[in-house]
Amino acid sequence: MSSNREIENLIELMAKLPGLGPRSARRAVLHLIRKRALLLTPLADMMQTVAATARECLNCGNVGTSDICDICDSEKRATGELCVVEDVADLWAMERSGMFKGRYHVLGGTLSALDAVGPQELRIPRLIDRVASEHITEVILALNATVEGQTTAHYIADQLEGQVLLTSLAQGVPIGGELDYLDDGTISAALRARKAL
Amino acid sequence: MSSNREIENLIELMAKLPGLGPRSARRAVLHLIRKRALLLTPLADMMQTVAATARECLNCGNVGTSDICDICDSEKRATGELCVVEDVADLWAMERSGMFKGRYHVLGGTLSALDAVGPQELRIPRLIDRVASEHITEVILALNATVEGQTTAHYIADQLEGQVLLTSLAQGVPIGGELDYLDDGTISAALRARKAL
Ligand SMILES: [Zn+2]
Ligand SMILES: [Zn+2]
Repeated sequence: MSSNREIENLIELMAKLPGLGPRSARRAVLHLIRKRALLLTPLADMMQTVAATARECLNCGNVGTSDICDICDSEKRATGELCVVEDVADLWAMERSGMFKGRYHVLGGTLSALDAVGPQELRIPRLIDRVASEHITEVILALNATVEGQTTAHYIADQLEGQVLLTSLAQGVPIGGELDYLDDGTISAALRARKAL
Repeated sequence: MSSNREIENLIELMAKLPGLGPRSARRAVLHLIRKRALLLTPLADMMQTVAATARECLNCGNVGTSDICDICDSEKRATGELCVVEDVADLWAMERSGMFKGRYHVLGGTLSALDAVGPQELRIPRLIDRVASEHITEVILALNATVEGQTTAHYIADQLEGQVLLTSLAQGVPIGGELDYLDDGTISAALRARKAL
């Protein structure tokens, strides 16, 4: 296509990114070559850095560059509140809302009989440990308002019932909606109006 | 947002790519971190390689990894036919059609009084040199079917009139259409049905 092996390889790799097809990958690579000093080299360097340092937080499942992430490590975060999310993109969406001052627990997906994802495949045993050992007073189940998300929330609520205050995001999350698609104001409103299960 | 400086920097750089906004950049970075060995590291390596080696062909303006690109350098390409395109993405689109066996000349844009782009800002003087020195028998003006593209085509046709057979892509290119958006079959048809100016 581009008549050059290295550039063709770069296009093929870029086309594997979510949101980029072959055509937008070609456009992106031409843009990168034109902006070599300003964009291509810094991007390559930062990818090397992240490839060398990124890891999952051993405590909560967030991604960062140390064994315990900055949020788990921060003394400024409220220790009693734990917000349970499906994946790291949802954690980032919660952080952008700026409303939540506690800590997180990233499940890494939702329960699914079809895909053979049980509690052991998610970080559910670790969540139950944390609730018992970290003096958690409230668990906010901030799962997507999908069938899978709500099934998973109910399962977790059953496991933790009587041990802790269980709440869920309420007002503002549309039916079928996914957190990462919502604007920050909607997330803030849903968090303020959270209700006990 | 991500609570981590390196990951945040990577998201910001990715968001500068055409076709990726902040949200899709975040999704892409999470995908990259999950596919570290399969995608992130190879992508970083290939970006380093391309950043170190990519250059414009001194002859035609195509991008490659040597001073003279593979197409200009190939003895298999018909030397008498020269296809003039606006940018490298259009050259790649022509190559994907697989119909053209000659060589290319990449203008690097179109004439624009508004943006102060004259013939000297494009590779038009070099085109006129090539027609005189490379035994070119036919110049195919494969410029976009936009006002700017057609203005540029007419300017070049005026410069080269009487020296060489001048043709343009015809059948199949929709009014206002840009080459890089067309399917390969449409480009093939337009090339087969090219007409003398
Ligand atoms: Zn953590
Ligand atoms: Zn060339």
